[in-house]
Amino acid sequence: MRVAVVGATGAVGRRMVSILEEREFPLDELRLFASPRSEGTRIPFRGESLTVHAAGGRWHEGVDVALTSAGGSVSRALLPEAAAAGTVCIDNSSAFRMDPDVPLVIPELNPDALLGHRNLIANPNCTAIVALMALGPLHREFGLRFLITSSYQSVSGAGQKGIRELAEQLGKLHGQEEALGLDGPVDAGGLPSGSVFPKTIAYNVVPICERPDPEGSGFTTEELKMGNEARKILGAPDLVVAATAVRVPVPVGHGISAYARFDRPTSPGAAREVLAAAPGVRVLDDPEAGAYPTPIEAAGRDDVLVGRIRRAHDDERALMLFSAGDNLRKGAALNAVQIAELLAG
Amino acid sequence: MRVAVVGATGAVGRRMVSILEEREFPLDELRLFASPRSEGTRIPFRGESLTVHAAGGRWHEGVDVALTSAGGSVSRALLPEAAAAGTVCIDNSSAFRMDPDVPLVIPELNPDALLGHRNLIANPNCTAIVALMALGPLHREFGLRFLITSSYQSVSGAGQKGIRELAEQLGKLHGQEEALGLDGPVDAGGLPSGSVFPKTIAYNVVPICERPDPEGSGFTTEELKMGNEARKILGAPDLVVAATAVRVPVPVGHGISAYARFDRPTSPGAAREVLAAAPGVRVLDDPEAGAYPTPIEAAGRDDVLVGRIRRAHDDERALMLFSAGDNLRKGAALNAVQIAELLAG
Repeated sequence: MRVAVVGATGAVGRRMVSILEEREFPLDELRLFASPRSEGTRIPFRGESLTVHAAGGRWHEGVDVALTSAGGSVSRALLPEAAAAGTVCIDNSSAFRMDPDVPLVIPELNPDALLGHRNLIANPNCTAIVALMALGPLHREFGLRFLITSSYQSVSGAGQKGIRELAEQLGKLHGQEEALGLDGPVDAGGLPSGSVFPKTIAYNVVPICERPDPEGSGFTTEELKMGNEARKILGAPDLVVAATAVRVPVPVGHGISAYARFDRPTSPGAAREVLAAAPGVRVLDDPEAGAYPTPIEAAGRDDVLVGRIRRAHDDERALMLFSAGDNLRKGAALNAVQIAELLAG
Repeated sequence: MRVAVVGATGAVGRRMVSILEEREFPLDELRLFASPRSEGTRIPFRGESLTVHAAGGRWHEGVDVALTSAGGSVSRALLPEAAAAGTVCIDNSSAFRMDPDVPLVIPELNPDALLGHRNLIANPNCTAIVALMALGPLHREFGLRFLITSSYQSVSGAGQKGIRELAEQLGKLHGQEEALGLDGPVDAGGLPSGSVFPKTIAYNVVPICERPDPEGSGFTTEELKMGNEARKILGAPDLVVAATAVRVPVPVGHGISAYARFDRPTSPGAAREVLAAAPGVRVLDDPEAGAYPTPIEAAGRDDVLVGRIRRAHDDERALMLFSAGDNLRKGAALNAVQIAELLAG
């Protein structure tokens, strides 16, 4: 099998390459593509050093499976032709996720959606994956009806440039922590700004990810993905979801605070039992002993961590929980490689 | 009027002193107290330099009003005697908040609760204040019935030592951002730890504030305050609240993501109108123009910022919003001074 990674120099693409190696993916050849700007970059793989080529032209010729993570516009430009020519494209962008002809897949939750695919498969949003790895198994058991989420999304959700922007801004503000806001309002003009996030992300949280819904719902496009993708992946068209997406000054690892109401009665104990048996999930739920998920502990791990499971007030159908996962691995690169593994099956 | 600040060297106490000066509080004398360890510290006030004394013995003699922020055990040890001797104590700790004989007051929301006080008045929890400054005016208009919150709480909620711990840990991890979790799980043993927060707070978020409820509800004591204090302050005994409290690596300024369901129909426009007329609130709600609350922009300000107001899915009784406020000012010191102003009024 000949595999390509498109967007190989990005934060997700680099992890696609390293995860293919870690998991000993059965491939005969790996080809790396990125934008012309990255042409010639060399990336290690299985003891060799592979050269990155510019994606374009007949890049997909001879490629059986392409893992793509180069943004929606690149995907829209490259993938329909490649898929039509027979390359199975597993795309990490949001370009095709809501297309009814495109399976949107978390392998642990809805592998059957791959049946009858037309060479184009979408990898879900990173925040949705971190939430649904916890909520999907509970849905199957108790019937998820109503979901409120607030996210704690790391800067690498915006790629390596997000990590760099955070680091640069922290470098500028470090040493001034105790003075921030001490003698009156912080002068917004004096705060470090950047090009990746709409406001200072160092020493701050920013409750806008992506952009406001052009249709004027008041949600951001990132927030709308949570509901749209959850309904599609869980096969739950009536599921009601209201999400808040917030960027936090964390390099890698997304956190999700969730309130979930189900059709059937449940309990924290029953939920822990279901999740303990769920693949790809690790229950960490003993706060007295320091066991609860945090993003930095999820970074670099395959499993999504779930904890803080509790009954919401006295409603026997409602649970609250906190999950954390590596947005670049299970939230993106690992999930895509797992889809490829299922197809290679 | 002779005023004392107890806990004058802490993050909240320092702001109590500076806010008394800023607002030209009508006092004849200001006395500063702290733990014996801080005895002799000098703090500027109205062009003078006041000496901090150890609180104890007959500290309250001749003090008309005491603003106290020295922790629950100090408050329990010092305040009942002082109040009985005639000193009006406005206490920032959680020690007396749920005592039915003690008013729990946000001056903009329930000033009448001060009537008939018995010299002991409680200042609410900082996170509850940031949430309720936004939700209280909406409750009055639409009848708040059901509330889900997720917080983004700054490290100064744990005092100056919280700010220092964050700064120290960031100093150790700065430069390693791009490597965090890149080559496998982050080694938890290699992460900087501290004494203030239960896990690394730099480059992380920690979904445990204070400690697990000893009664085993699964909530933390910090999370339970949100419901208990909201019901008392709003006079809404049937209000259902489920909170998640999360510490974030921000020096000053708490954020709150809220989902609120009301008894009566409402809309984002109606809510904005109500909040635009609410004292102590500033509506910042035009994301396209960069207008939405963030903690760093709330730091050093008196107003609580409110934005991201939107209808949750299609429920005309439900709204979502994001608020941010300076946890040391309106969340603590300013609110206490405002209570003193009402009493002096």
